Amino acid sequence: MTVPTFDDVVAAHERIRPYIHHTPVLTSSYLDELTGAHLFFKCENFQKAGAFKVRGASNAVFGLSEAMAKRGVATHSSGNHALSLSYAAGRRGIPCTVVMPHTAPQAKKDAVRGYGGKIIECEPSTSSREATFAEVVAQTGAEFVHPYNDSRVIAGQATCSRELLRQVDGLDAVVAPIGGGGMISGTCLSLSTLAPGIQIYAAEPDQADDAARSFRAGHIIADDAPVTVADGLKVPLKELTWHFVQNFVTDVLTASEDEIVEAMKLIWKRMKIVMEPSSAVPLATILRNPDVFRGKRIGVIITGGNVDLDHLPWNQWPRRPS
Amino acid sequence: MTVPTFDDVVAAHERIRPYIHHTPVLTSSYLDELTGAHLFFKCENFQKAGAFKVRGASNAVFGLSEAMAKRGVATHSSGNHALSLSYAAGRRGIPCTVVMPHTAPQAKKDAVRGYGGKIIECEPSTSSREATFAEVVAQTGAEFVHPYNDSRVIAGQATCSRELLRQVDGLDAVVAPIGGGGMISGTCLSLSTLAPGIQIYAAEPDQADDAARSFRAGHIIADDAPVTVADGLKVPLKELTWHFVQNFVTDVLTASEDEIVEAMKLIWKRMKIVMEPSSAVPLATILRNPDVFRGKRIGVIITGGNVDLDHLPWNQWPRRPS
Repeated sequence: MTVPTFDDVVAAHERIRPYIHHTPVLTSSYLDELTGAHLFFKCENFQKAGAFKVRGASNAVFGLSEAMAKRGVATHSSGNHALSLSYAAGRRGIPCTVVMPHTAPQAKKDAVRGYGGKIIECEPSTSSREATFAEVVAQTGAEFVHPYNDSRVIAGQATCSRELLRQVDGLDAVVAPIGGGGMISGTCLSLSTLAPGIQIYAAEPDQADDAARSFRAGHIIADDAPVTVADGLKVPLKELTWHFVQNFVTDVLTASEDEIVEAMKLIWKRMKIVMEPSSAVPLATILRNPDVFRGKRIGVIITGGNVDLDHLPWNQWPRRPS
Repeated sequence: MTVPTFDDVVAAHERIRPYIHHTPVLTSSYLDELTGAHLFFKCENFQKAGAFKVRGASNAVFGLSEAMAKRGVATHSSGNHALSLSYAAGRRGIPCTVVMPHTAPQAKKDAVRGYGGKIIECEPSTSSREATFAEVVAQTGAEFVHPYNDSRVIAGQATCSRELLRQVDGLDAVVAPIGGGGMISGTCLSLSTLAPGIQIYAAEPDQADDAARSFRAGHIIADDAPVTVADGLKVPLKELTWHFVQNFVTDVLTASEDEIVEAMKLIWKRMKIVMEPSSAVPLATILRNPDVFRGKRIGVIITGGNVDLDHLPWNQWPRRPS
């Protein structure tokens, strides 16, 4: 296990700067009033390829030696890492193979192919995904860029909160979604060096609460195939992201499916931005835990905007009895 | 008829500054490639009350004497002017009455009431709207702020393109939707003083093409109740806006219902912003007329973002055989 350092973050930022957007921070007086907090939304939905994951993917791709780059890159991903890696590989002009569940949103499959990535489909479970992927790597010899359990990827994601700290003064806390933990780990990496007083909250669905259970148990707990509208947050922690969660995260908060969809619709309606269900989980947890956040200055990471406009969750998602 | 001057624009900008957002200009490398032009989207969907109309409404409300302000303001509107006037009146703490078709989107009715405006419903035709309104004014004695045929309103809307010129250098043309013509008139007012070389294109639906027909005929042609997904663009020109259209507009371009919905979805998908059908008409006309815009630097006014998320047009709008 190679734990990235803040020097890696600085190097990553320099390396990826030509390939990423410096995304804006938006505010909403309505949502501030509703939550009683001051919310600063870091809008990675406006990022290249539509998600923060292009930061880590670009750092991995552009850090490869010429010899390694020639053999291409490969990964498995529930979506945004897949298209981010395809984007970065396309910019460098090298091949990219992606193992993806056949249930992934059509919009994400189209986008991967649009960037020139090649898709191999698998079943929608972590076990099937990893087995299929092992075959692909054996066949192609491509460099594996894990969606989150990769030192290069975490250093890349860390550039997001480094930017946020330059854009907003006096933050008390940052809230980011947690799936595999790449964004949260990057947030921990930057904040623990630059502003160790800022609290770090991870937000996840009740129905995929493996990180919350891991956090309380003190060791990694993994679910094989959780069901949630927040399709980017289904994957489990791994040893590298667990290192950051265990050592730097203040708390892991959760929200119900209805709360997530409600928060998503609220952001679309009031802030006029398109973002995906996973990105609504932080606001959903802030609304569920008003006492934790009231009166504070909170950075909220909007992780991505790649949503299938023909299947929006307030029309289509099957609500479950709570 | 009092035609506003550029001095009125400067005064309006000073007056309304505390109540409006300085909205951002966004670009999209994807849409630039698709159109062969350089598009600069002035994002009034991020404006207070969700639309550019808050500029004109605020200028009217905050320009009233104390005595006039006490009696309140009143208007008729297909939506965004209604909630913008309610917003501005609320900020000044004076009453606001709005005559609105009962078919107006629920989201807009809720927003008007949310800002403290009082709604009186009418039939969805210009004739019914104007008759109902006359009664309201007779009863309340409120100051009538017309949605567009008002010198104060046009001077307010003109602040939008004044900002755009400061944000983007070297524009060749600006494209804005045209309904009653308030935004286009404001655009003409600012550009004819500040940058008379910039061409001004008005964009409207094929199915509500009264401005295009007026432009070709040389006099105002008004339809009573056109049917289009671009619900903000159904109203006819009046003498003040006709003055600007006739004297300063380069051309009026139109787009079909399908082209408008397609352009709207394209902007949502690629730019990750929520905007309403009326705001998609400029891009739809640019895509229909590539030769007019290819290679040029084009300002595109995204006029508003108040859309009913439960009734998005790519799911719900009845497509007509073309």
